[in-house]
Amino acid sequence: EELDFDSEEFLRSGQRVLGWIAHYLENARDFPVLSTLDPGNVRDSIPDHAPDQGEEFAAIIDDFDRLILPGITHWNHPRFFSYFPSSASEAGILGEFLCAALNVNAMKWQTSPAATELESAVAEWMSRLLGLGRLWGIIYDTASISTLHAMAAAREAVPGLEVRTKGLQGGSSPLRLYASEQSHTSVDKAALTLGLGLESVRKIPVDGRFRMRADALREAILKDRRAGEIPFFVTATVGTTSTASVDSIAEIAAVSKPFNLWLHVDAAYAGVAAVLPEFAWIFDGSESADSIVVNPHKWLFTPMDISLLFCRRPEILRRAFALVPDYLSASREEETADLMDYGLQLGRRFRALKLWMVLRRFGKEGLQRKIGSHIQWAKEFADQVDRSPNFELMAPPLFSTVCFRCNPGGQGGASLDELNRELLERTNASGKLFISSTRLNERLVLRLSIGNVRTRKEDVESAWEWIRRTAADLR
Amino acid sequence: EELDFDSEEFLRSGQRVLGWIAHYLENARDFPVLSTLDPGNVRDSIPDHAPDQGEEFAAIIDDFDRLILPGITHWNHPRFFSYFPSSASEAGILGEFLCAALNVNAMKWQTSPAATELESAVAEWMSRLLGLGRLWGIIYDTASISTLHAMAAAREAVPGLEVRTKGLQGGSSPLRLYASEQSHTSVDKAALTLGLGLESVRKIPVDGRFRMRADALREAILKDRRAGEIPFFVTATVGTTSTASVDSIAEIAAVSKPFNLWLHVDAAYAGVAAVLPEFAWIFDGSESADSIVVNPHKWLFTPMDISLLFCRRPEILRRAFALVPDYLSASREEETADLMDYGLQLGRRFRALKLWMVLRRFGKEGLQRKIGSHIQWAKEFADQVDRSPNFELMAPPLFSTVCFRCNPGGQGGASLDELNRELLERTNASGKLFISSTRLNERLVLRLSIGNVRTRKEDVESAWEWIRRTAADLR
Repeated sequence: EELDFDSEEFLRSGQRVLGWIAHYLENARDFPVLSTLDPGNVRDSIPDHAPDQGEEFAAIIDDFDRLILPGITHWNHPRFFSYFPSSASEAGILGEFLCAALNVNAMKWQTSPAATELESAVAEWMSRLLGLGRLWGIIYDTASISTLHAMAAAREAVPGLEVRTKGLQGGSSPLRLYASEQSHTSVDKAALTLGLGLESVRKIPVDGRFRMRADALREAILKDRRAGEIPFFVTATVGTTSTASVDSIAEIAAVSKPFNLWLHVDAAYAGVAAVLPEFAWIFDGSESADSIVVNPHKWLFTPMDISLLFCRRPEILRRAFALVPDYLSASREEETADLMDYGLQLGRRFRALKLWMVLRRFGKEGLQRKIGSHIQWAKEFADQVDRSPNFELMAPPLFSTVCFRCNPGGQGGASLDELNRELLERTNASGKLFISSTRLNERLVLRLSIGNVRTRKEDVESAWEWIRRTAADLR
Repeated sequence: EELDFDSEEFLRSGQRVLGWIAHYLENARDFPVLSTLDPGNVRDSIPDHAPDQGEEFAAIIDDFDRLILPGITHWNHPRFFSYFPSSASEAGILGEFLCAALNVNAMKWQTSPAATELESAVAEWMSRLLGLGRLWGIIYDTASISTLHAMAAAREAVPGLEVRTKGLQGGSSPLRLYASEQSHTSVDKAALTLGLGLESVRKIPVDGRFRMRADALREAILKDRRAGEIPFFVTATVGTTSTASVDSIAEIAAVSKPFNLWLHVDAAYAGVAAVLPEFAWIFDGSESADSIVVNPHKWLFTPMDISLLFCRRPEILRRAFALVPDYLSASREEETADLMDYGLQLGRRFRALKLWMVLRRFGKEGLQRKIGSHIQWAKEFADQVDRSPNFELMAPPLFSTVCFRCNPGGQGGASLDELNRELLERTNASGKLFISSTRLNERLVLRLSIGNVRTRKEDVESAWEWIRRTAADLR
């Protein structure tokens, strides 16, 4: 039929796309990092209806270049220093290409044994790489979903709740969970989704280094228990989103375990740093953790999306989610695990494939060199900030993330916020680099985070030069 | 650095992967559809540790071919007739390749304006293609997640519940939801996850054509109201998983709207059939629907994963999920919508890209021809079954799905189940084709569903030949 690709058209179109990607990755520095389009520009260039007739693939690629590309903020740009960077290595990109071609659904073992078994294998590879020993793990799409599953398992584990049948509608005492005030919103969103409500999330104060205060956690748990409420879950964050601070898992475990709370570790960003022996400490105490989330799509050069949840009690995760309908019953259920039983989503991409390719392509030592370099360059950036009379560090630099601001002296809080907002906007509008901001102790703070697989030392150096000079122009 | 791909290695590796994929797609018929490996075969071939040193990409591809491929069940095989088939067209595969290369996160408008705006554009394209007018839509990963979001919005919309703050822990009367006994487990899993509990899911009996009985729905709602409970949500299914039956949206709306229930339509599989004028009727009454889910990754030739949720009340979806932390605050919030505010997941792939490419490559008429052919071939298969003295249809054939069994006469229920189980196992073990089973009215039923973009009429004919002959051998 005319509308099918034949092999020749596929090869021709594929060549064009491959060439486009090779050129893009080599020249990503030439694009403005943050898209310069105005709201509506892309939408206005797209017709209101799908075409009636099919089109040549070449015409679609032309439009991709012309209409879509200007509206892209380049996450694969080596000077993307915003949020937590997330970049795709070549091995990961080719892994996604193969994944799309196979297009398997890893819902059941039999729907692709290799997908299910490679998933368990790479989870073990990862747990050993990070010094966690051999842990059971499962791959979800995002940390939001991983944390939701951990919290759902914890809810299932509360004795006497009958959550599978009655949900939270059985009139039990309210459940309460704990996370530092620096924890990620995925904790709040999980609580919202699971029907716990935002009120159930107790935000625990942090110390001067933005780490959860174990004494305050203890007080909060005791207070809730005295009120007849049920503390059931606590998140320790290894690499918080604003400052990359590291909660002490050991101290949190010491407080929470006697009360039988499920201990979840959110190491979505920083967990991969444990591949370096000098960062093994970040997981101290994690032998008490019930679950740990690490995102290979953040700082492990694997394309979006892939989030890994390690769990020491997978049978509880299964109890929380397993439901096997007639149309999916299998003949080898005794012998095999169907990963769909461990989660909400029935459709499961073969995400393990790209991670397996990335881990083999880099090897442990390659990952150590990349991640180690990012940490080193962040340290050098932080040193420059610290030495400059016009700038100051706003949090102890950790991993590859630096929180800082311009402070030439003699200005109050509000005008400093204004100065830094202006610096942020000029910097990002330049297209040369992209940094983000946050608020710490009520102050606007600039944030630079390094994680792109193609970032070089010179990219970080030029970022500092740009920020320093722009600040000088502003004063 | 030695561990980075240079442009030349990327092109060389990409050529190899591209060639592999072209060959695979052209020759997918040569593989056994269902993997013939035993449990553990793949796992046992993978080392326990990631390698210390990085490897050449060529070695990784060699192992992919040698170790992974035999463990693949070929969803892209033209004789994959199991579950609901899900196949990747070439345009979709190349779209995923580009998506991985850009690797943007469509969480906020500014993190790629084109990703946010193309998402809204293709949602409109799809709603118009399906005869639904111009609807607001958002893309999630799977129908499980789309339905969860619809149900969460419905929960948020219940007056006086304070679900954002107190969740379901505020001691309100229990919420109840309704779906037919033929509805998908994603409804049950959403109820589990949201803290409603399985008891809250009222399974409504179906009529002789497996459609929800509106009278029984009405009785169930009234009974729950009399008991002081709160009916809040109902799912109408357009294309149920076992038989592809179509609930009457209009009848369900007529019953549920006076009681103010959120009306969700699960059209994950069959919704795309409405691209054909003769199937416009499946959405009759949908002007009363609050939300509708359609999965382009099922029968619209777009690679996993992509699920589209149309919603008439997006502001409620936003109210249910929006939480903007300091580290993500933006400067243009008034002018733009950040899609992260409409859902649980912060990380959002640029899934609209592949769908845009598929819709343009096929055009409306191309989609009509493909989907129309599948429906036609299913009808022809059903006619063969119906004409054969040794087989019978077990449900009215609809769309591209046929439920049938071998029944040579003279055998009781249990032995017929045994015969059909044997037929199923021999068929799937042959590697020639892959069909699935379900249970209807307590009987084992075989199920053939057509949806692969590369399936030809001959594939369906040979499937019938195989099943017919295997059954003859068995008797």
